[in-house]
Amino acid sequence: MTVSIGVLGTGRIGVMHAELIAQRIPGARLAGIYDVMPESSSKLAERLGCKTFTSPAELMSSDEVDAIAICTSTNTHVDLLVMASNYRKPTFCEKPVSLTLSETDRALRAVSESKTPVMMGFNRRFDPAHRAVRDRVADGTLGEVHLVRITSRDPAPPPLEYAKVSGGIFVDMTIHDFDMARYVTGSEIVQVYAIGDLRIVPSFKEANDLDTVALTLVHANGAITQIDNSRQAVYGYDQRVEAFGSKGLAASENPYSHTALVRSDKGTAHTTIPYFFLERYIPSYLAEWNEFLSVVNGSKPSVGVADGRASLVAGLAAWKSYHEQRPVKTNEIS
Amino acid sequence: MTVSIGVLGTGRIGVMHAELIAQRIPGARLAGIYDVMPESSSKLAERLGCKTFTSPAELMSSDEVDAIAICTSTNTHVDLLVMASNYRKPTFCEKPVSLTLSETDRALRAVSESKTPVMMGFNRRFDPAHRAVRDRVADGTLGEVHLVRITSRDPAPPPLEYAKVSGGIFVDMTIHDFDMARYVTGSEIVQVYAIGDLRIVPSFKEANDLDTVALTLVHANGAITQIDNSRQAVYGYDQRVEAFGSKGLAASENPYSHTALVRSDKGTAHTTIPYFFLERYIPSYLAEWNEFLSVVNGSKPSVGVADGRASLVAGLAAWKSYHEQRPVKTNEIS
Amino acid sequence: MTVSIGVLGTGRIGVMHAELIAQRIPGARLAGIYDVMPESSSKLAERLGCKTFTSPAELMSSDEVDAIAICTSTNTHVDLLVMASNYRKPTFCEKPVSLTLSETDRALRAVSESKTPVMMGFNRRFDPAHRAVRDRVADGTLGEVHLVRITSRDPAPPPLEYAKVSGGIFVDMTIHDFDMARYVTGSEIVQVYAIGDLRIVPSFKEANDLDTVALTLVHANGAITQIDNSRQAVYGYDQRVEAFGSKGLAASENPYSHTALVRSDKGTAHTTIPYFFLERYIPSYLAEWNEFLSVVNGSKPSVGVADGRASLVAGLAAWKSYHEQRPVKTNEIS
Amino acid sequence: MTVSIGVLGTGRIGVMHAELIAQRIPGARLAGIYDVMPESSSKLAERLGCKTFTSPAELMSSDEVDAIAICTSTNTHVDLLVMASNYRKPTFCEKPVSLTLSETDRALRAVSESKTPVMMGFNRRFDPAHRAVRDRVADGTLGEVHLVRITSRDPAPPPLEYAKVSGGIFVDMTIHDFDMARYVTGSEIVQVYAIGDLRIVPSFKEANDLDTVALTLVHANGAITQIDNSRQAVYGYDQRVEAFGSKGLAASENPYSHTALVRSDKGTAHTTIPYFFLERYIPSYLAEWNEFLSVVNGSKPSVGVADGRASLVAGLAAWKSYHEQRPVKTNEIS
Repeated sequence: MTVSIGVLGTGRIGVMHAELIAQRIPGARLAGIYDVMPESSSKLAERLGCKTFTSPAELMSSDEVDAIAICTSTNTHVDLLVMASNYRKPTFCEKPVSLTLSETDRALRAVSESKTPVMMGFNRRFDPAHRAVRDRVADGTLGEVHLVRITSRDPAPPPLEYAKVSGGIFVDMTIHDFDMARYVTGSEIVQVYAIGDLRIVPSFKEANDLDTVALTLVHANGAITQIDNSRQAVYGYDQRVEAFGSKGLAASENPYSHTALVRSDKGTAHTTIPYFFLERYIPSYLAEWNEFLSVVNGSKPSVGVADGRASLVAGLAAWKSYHEQRPVKTNEIS
Repeated sequence: MTVSIGVLGTGRIGVMHAELIAQRIPGARLAGIYDVMPESSSKLAERLGCKTFTSPAELMSSDEVDAIAICTSTNTHVDLLVMASNYRKPTFCEKPVSLTLSETDRALRAVSESKTPVMMGFNRRFDPAHRAVRDRVADGTLGEVHLVRITSRDPAPPPLEYAKVSGGIFVDMTIHDFDMARYVTGSEIVQVYAIGDLRIVPSFKEANDLDTVALTLVHANGAITQIDNSRQAVYGYDQRVEAFGSKGLAASENPYSHTALVRSDKGTAHTTIPYFFLERYIPSYLAEWNEFLSVVNGSKPSVGVADGRASLVAGLAAWKSYHEQRPVKTNEIS
Repeated sequence: MTVSIGVLGTGRIGVMHAELIAQRIPGARLAGIYDVMPESSSKLAERLGCKTFTSPAELMSSDEVDAIAICTSTNTHVDLLVMASNYRKPTFCEKPVSLTLSETDRALRAVSESKTPVMMGFNRRFDPAHRAVRDRVADGTLGEVHLVRITSRDPAPPPLEYAKVSGGIFVDMTIHDFDMARYVTGSEIVQVYAIGDLRIVPSFKEANDLDTVALTLVHANGAITQIDNSRQAVYGYDQRVEAFGSKGLAASENPYSHTALVRSDKGTAHTTIPYFFLERYIPSYLAEWNEFLSVVNGSKPSVGVADGRASLVAGLAAWKSYHEQRPVKTNEIS
Repeated sequence: MTVSIGVLGTGRIGVMHAELIAQRIPGARLAGIYDVMPESSSKLAERLGCKTFTSPAELMSSDEVDAIAICTSTNTHVDLLVMASNYRKPTFCEKPVSLTLSETDRALRAVSESKTPVMMGFNRRFDPAHRAVRDRVADGTLGEVHLVRITSRDPAPPPLEYAKVSGGIFVDMTIHDFDMARYVTGSEIVQVYAIGDLRIVPSFKEANDLDTVALTLVHANGAITQIDNSRQAVYGYDQRVEAFGSKGLAASENPYSHTALVRSDKGTAHTTIPYFFLERYIPSYLAEWNEFLSVVNGSKPSVGVADGRASLVAGLAAWKSYHEQRPVKTNEIS
């Protein structure tokens, strides 16, 4: 049976999700969309052949909507999750839940008490290559996991205005890597050490933000994770995960945009790697939506609000570590 | 302005094209579909939200149809191309044009005289990696091209019934490679030498067909192309093109299904390559449809009926070479 | 016990072998050298700390020489093999045995009748990567072998004077590939089809030679081998072997000179591949000498004069095929 | 003119250097060797055709010795460097200089005051791949360097007895990576943060040592280096360096033992990476000796005792950081 999904928010990521639901997920249907800017949503609705709603409540309460996708700006996530809990409809929510723990906990309570199935949009878990790394830990191929290395580098920095409200690099960017570290090791983060600098966009000083950071995590099971992030890798969206254990190593490497190479007397040239998430991670979004369909049909989400909370704690611990220049236990954050 | 395309034939390749047009080609719309089996087309029409037509003529003549896609079985292509010529609507046609030269010439005449823009579905030309190889020849990076190597191996053989009517391996399979050889070298095939054997499906003897072949082509510009084909590569759809010239080499390699690797004391393991064309060549089909939109808007197709004819001539020359055990000039075929 | 080896001929390849024996083969000792140009051998002898001999006979008969290495020019090989047979000392001989079949047969007779162990210098058999390809055929990993593809391209053409006496490209260059085809398939060559052209060094017309060739072999076990050769690959010494069978594929790829890569907004750059055999094949020569030590200690050589003969037959068949423009059975050559 | 080198110490690394000097470095000659165990050195001397000395002083003072190689156990390095300074002969010394700063400074003073050219054996600087990474920083290709990642993992742990006297993992193993970090960034280490654990060899607790560590360095130029080490990578000697900067990335990857691959329906298999330094780093040692010949001929060594000191300081800072669980400035070490 086809699942009808209503999408809240039609910014860049919302448009992408609406298109995927409308066009590329067999078993899903785009029931309708809502955006705080009606003109943007009505154009999209026309293009994708769906209706528009005039408020989140109208969308959530509609009989035509089986499930909800929250793709609005971060500061609205908690209210919308609470509202969705009232309707008990299966809900997909983009990360992060919130920039504060207390708000995150408010969402977590509402969702738990209502037993609403909520899946958080940590799409990288669904990337076939990163997932294969995790699977080789989970199935014992690598033995005990000792070290994890994660590199995430964006092709270009976001606008300063974004940095001012995003929670900063540890919350807007590293949050994916905290989630990946938990996902790959299967173990909670107990300590965070973080340093960083402004090397690319000096203006981010105004937002008290960083653009180049390096972190060292300790997990409950003893594994150590090293993360590095940059807001600007001129060669493209650099996304790599490596797990090392007593029996070997698994690693996801960057793909190339295509597989042609050229050899000359100067050496061998390959093409570029994918530029950014639209070029790199569509397969992960498709897999994410396929899992969400299972959630709608009764499966437990593999990644929920509690996971969003754990990564936020790590992000806040990272900022504390950076400011206090010492390793910080995650249980110091509350 | 959106181009409305009507699709004739909803077998495996027709369904794929209809879906791509309906869902993944901005600027295109699926106007409707026709199939000789009405029940199969009506289900698809419902799923994709388009109308069905009751005959090719109804589809071609409809005001709602700006352009035509011929995805029916090979033996209908010529009649449909001739019919499309009457309507002068831009037409996409799956390869091959026909299994005989005289029929191909009939289509060619109709298309030429009516000046109907017809684009043949040699999708591999639109694969970004193979295209990059061609571009490095065309832009002079490789200097004069001396040697080309093409490997095409399917993951599994088609049914015997298909082999009986397909024209045999040189026409149903190598035809893509003849086109690739012409595309990469930018030069006509003047001689073909072909050998082959039955190594995988002995029953194909009944169809007088082969499953393992090796060919050597000579081009008008002096380049030599070596091709090998197998109807069964257990590791997946092996698709490689290499051009070698006075200044270097360009080659398209097989992609992996994902980029994760595992290292153990046994060595390093990568995952499989894509299984078949749906896993491997979607980007090429998308690019193909984007070019077709340009054709509808007045551009000359980069690959037309005459190209289909040239590859058929090479295929017929290959059969002649195989049977007579000698190199055959393409001008011996008429 | 250390094996003392005397080296005949101190041209480029003889110097290399003398150095390897003197310095890099534990269990081997360079007993002494002979060259038709005494001044060149005396300098080398001083550098490597060995004696010089004044004639092949003096070297071969010396009590200090346990085994003989023939690295002189091709036209002397047969006489020296016959001479070595008189001394019954284990002998290594560079390829080819001779440019003519009758001379090759004279050597073969002398060696066979005297039961002298002779190992031919087809070093590529000892390359770890090519050997791994062969081993995957031999151990059944690939199932039945259907197709083999061999690419051998030199970085730069030899002098015209060499081409005039070398037997031409099919005998001086493709001979390695004929041997590789027999080695990998484990099956004799029964038919050869060869075409070629002069694309790089027009002056080789004077030697009736070619610089760019493509061959198709049929083996006794039904396998088909495609070979391409060029006398000039500007990007380095291109050496690849691929075997394809019912259960999969094994292939040896070109190594890089080192493993560093550079990524920029233009793409990814790797360094060059090895320039020529001294940069590429030293491990194969080392393995070859290690096998030769086993031969001295009683093992049967894995590659002997009969193998040299089989490759020469294929080379002569290739020339006949080229001139007569038809596939030629190897049993037409005698 | 040939340089005659005397080698002190014929343990594993001393034997390797003696062999390289005797056999593979044109322009160098092995003048003789000394070892505290005369029987081991006399066998080696016989095999390599050189003399033995009965004391370091005899070797250093000999007219037949132009230059000295110190390959003895670490605790003798300083005395031997001081002694070599008396003779003012160019000296190669294996790393580390010493396990203590005061002793290191004693060596540094003797060498500086006597102006004896001393080259430290940080061989990884001479590896062509790592060197290429450094060169892309040094020549500006990468722009400003922001992040460096270094992975060094040994295939198997050393004996406990070694760990007890080696200075521990940060001094016996990470020391190479500290040197690499300084080499690649071209900038001093100003801060070290280190964590670690015992995951592989619990018995190393007796030596107060670790087997799995992760470090974060800050350099004077603002670059950040992340290092990870393990004493046991079952898949071989994992040695990778990556530099990331404003204009791109350069990275040295692990080579394969050979380049053959096998494809089956299970995926693609490559062979192992080199097992340990003898399989991996011979080209670096050869390049090192070639530079040393230049040093003997008057060039300044590219890596001297002061470099050894800087890496030792970083190693001591790492231990302090580990014990005090905080980042440590290198200027806290004295």
